[in-house]
Amino acid sequence: MTLGQKAVEMKALSPMLAATSVETRNAALRAIADALQANKQVIFEANEKDLNLADIKGVADQIVKRLKFGEEKLADVISGIESLIELPDPLNRTLIRRELDEGLVLNQVTCPIGVIGVIFESRPDAMVQVSTLCIKSGNCAILKGGSEAEFTNAALFKVISEAAYSAGIPEGTLLQAVTHADIEELLWADQSIDLLIPRGSNTFVKYIMDNTNIPVMGHADGKCSTYVDKDADLEKAVRILVDAKVQYPAACNATENIFIHSDIAGKLVPEMARAMKENGVQLRGTPEIMALTEDCVEAEEEAFDTEYLDLIVSATTVENMDEAIDFINRHGSHHTDAIITENDQAAEKFMQLVDSAGVYRNCSTRFADGYRYGFGAEVGISTGKLHARGPVGLDGLVTYKYKLYGDGHIVGDYAAGRRQFHFKDL
Amino acid sequence: MTLGQKAVEMKALSPMLAATSVETRNAALRAIADALQANKQVIFEANEKDLNLADIKGVADQIVKRLKFGEEKLADVISGIESLIELPDPLNRTLIRRELDEGLVLNQVTCPIGVIGVIFESRPDAMVQVSTLCIKSGNCAILKGGSEAEFTNAALFKVISEAAYSAGIPEGTLLQAVTHADIEELLWADQSIDLLIPRGSNTFVKYIMDNTNIPVMGHADGKCSTYVDKDADLEKAVRILVDAKVQYPAACNATENIFIHSDIAGKLVPEMARAMKENGVQLRGTPEIMALTEDCVEAEEEAFDTEYLDLIVSATTVENMDEAIDFINRHGSHHTDAIITENDQAAEKFMQLVDSAGVYRNCSTRFADGYRYGFGAEVGISTGKLHARGPVGLDGLVTYKYKLYGDGHIVGDYAAGRRQFHFKDL
Repeated sequence: MTLGQKAVEMKALSPMLAATSVETRNAALRAIADALQANKQVIFEANEKDLNLADIKGVADQIVKRLKFGEEKLADVISGIESLIELPDPLNRTLIRRELDEGLVLNQVTCPIGVIGVIFESRPDAMVQVSTLCIKSGNCAILKGGSEAEFTNAALFKVISEAAYSAGIPEGTLLQAVTHADIEELLWADQSIDLLIPRGSNTFVKYIMDNTNIPVMGHADGKCSTYVDKDADLEKAVRILVDAKVQYPAACNATENIFIHSDIAGKLVPEMARAMKENGVQLRGTPEIMALTEDCVEAEEEAFDTEYLDLIVSATTVENMDEAIDFINRHGSHHTDAIITENDQAAEKFMQLVDSAGVYRNCSTRFADGYRYGFGAEVGISTGKLHARGPVGLDGLVTYKYKLYGDGHIVGDYAAGRRQFHFKDL
Repeated sequence: MTLGQKAVEMKALSPMLAATSVETRNAALRAIADALQANKQVIFEANEKDLNLADIKGVADQIVKRLKFGEEKLADVISGIESLIELPDPLNRTLIRRELDEGLVLNQVTCPIGVIGVIFESRPDAMVQVSTLCIKSGNCAILKGGSEAEFTNAALFKVISEAAYSAGIPEGTLLQAVTHADIEELLWADQSIDLLIPRGSNTFVKYIMDNTNIPVMGHADGKCSTYVDKDADLEKAVRILVDAKVQYPAACNATENIFIHSDIAGKLVPEMARAMKENGVQLRGTPEIMALTEDCVEAEEEAFDTEYLDLIVSATTVENMDEAIDFINRHGSHHTDAIITENDQAAEKFMQLVDSAGVYRNCSTRFADGYRYGFGAEVGISTGKLHARGPVGLDGLVTYKYKLYGDGHIVGDYAAGRRQFHFKDL
């Protein structure tokens, strides 16, 4: 069977997984945690193979670091699974319970989305996180990890799926996609797959978005901005700007563009430039910024449309807040943008008018993350406006259905005026 | 300016509309209702032109009937606007308010989606309904009505937009698309338009879905089924089946397929066939059905994959409920499907396992409608699983943003263990 054919069967099977109790789903998570522990040697050995291959291929240190799956990562993913077990069941929650008329009762009840395809980066821990999130939310999962982690992913998938099935999860509700040809099959399987979640490089995510009819959740760019208002506390501003760039420069929620109100540029820029330099950040500025510090190179024309993912940041002055808002809305990626100000009115205006999933006051854009929001787990960050927006936790992996209970009720009676709706929320 | 260029400006303007108060948006709705009344002669005259043209072109009676916009339709749309004014503001509702740590507070707040393109059928009243729903929910709207209603739509759009702008809605947040070339421009404007809602024929909706990267909300097919269980009350069953087909056969929520448990087919089929015949419905059945009644023609092979939108219905027997569920999940359109049974367990199983936006017990599939669900208004029915599902009211036209308030908070402090999150819902 091709992956496309397997996906058709998975779709037919998905209502069975949706119907499992939370006890069964939690038992599967427990079984997975135990099986990972019990089979750790097999997993570590597979990981050694991937690391050796990476070494032979001369893969960049950064990627090798993410590829490593040892005792520490194992402890992390097991503790992640344990937190996930503790989270409340996202399924079968009644959102609306309404009597439309006597004996005619409408229930809006949460249920899984169905079949989700997740294509993720080289970290093998993502295999564990994504599969367990899907199990907890009752979704069938087709998982495609990075090819650098091929052996580790195969070992993890085997342990995870066998443990899940042995604990009562219907067989066939977890699939692993391996090759690039598999990805192409996924893109065409719009009758079987309800949602694709691609994670990885901008180019890769954009490719997925442009080449499928399946709804895609995620983000391509992460061009986040921080605007320093004329009423900013300069010490806070410098502290936040440095964190927003330096704390993890390769993250999608790192600040790439800094907008500084011209009234305070004279005071802020030298301090900021010094702090950036101390932290190994290259500051790229417009002529107005360059005039205020020597620790700055000229920003090229494309600078403010660039996601550096590195220790580089662009800065410019603006005459007023509206200029910053307009630029962010037109050029940003609607991910996360911040204002630094002590002025309540300015903050509210910025947070109202900036059209992004996250709008922050006096804190680092790096807070945009499911764990930091208290969601307990995160499947990704969405810059789309349909369904889930921002960091996506378990709630973003469910939809709802309407259950209507009647007793012989027909629409003709209402159309003819023989009966009337009375809409009473129960 | 082309429509695509206008859409870019509309996108830039959308945060201004999102920031209007509910008082302003309701005042605009009031102004629209008044202006429609005050300008009714102009509108009726425009409608006469459309009706005359339809007459000359020999347009089908059914379409002419929908095209007519007179005193009665005017009263309907005005009463619709008045109900919409009464509905609570869908914007600025706080869904989550959570202290992540001392002085670091997260708010999840509803906001408009942004720019919505709605392409609708020949009824000119849709122009009023859709534009007012978008205004109430703070969304910019690009409206494309059916070409048969060209003059009426132009007159309505002029009255609506002028009234809205005069009441304080930002100018440029309502646009009318007129030509087919305009539709093509909309499909490409994925940087400006956040959501497309196509309404109309199956072929048309499918075309839109297949030819844009913009998220699409709606439904192509409406192949609804009703399954009559072995524990059904036969009188209820016949009454419901007739209503589900006859009450408005051209609607997407009309029942097209009937599945009958073979244990009760002998009793049900003759009665059902007689009732269908009395109501002018052609029954198309499998050999098992034909053996039980003379009022039945043979169902062709494609019958159970067909949305008749007419006084025709397909019927077959099934050996058990699982067979019906499996067929509905594989061949249906995930719109609305019903079970007729007095057996609680059977009902729950069917409603759990059928993967449709609406799953009904002992009532007509025709209830699938925003008004009948008590939403007060409806922009369409979605068979997708992302964002809104089933009948879509005002809540389906909003998303949310995360507002995070800090006081110099940086992620580095948490990464280094100097501070801890404590997640307290406020």
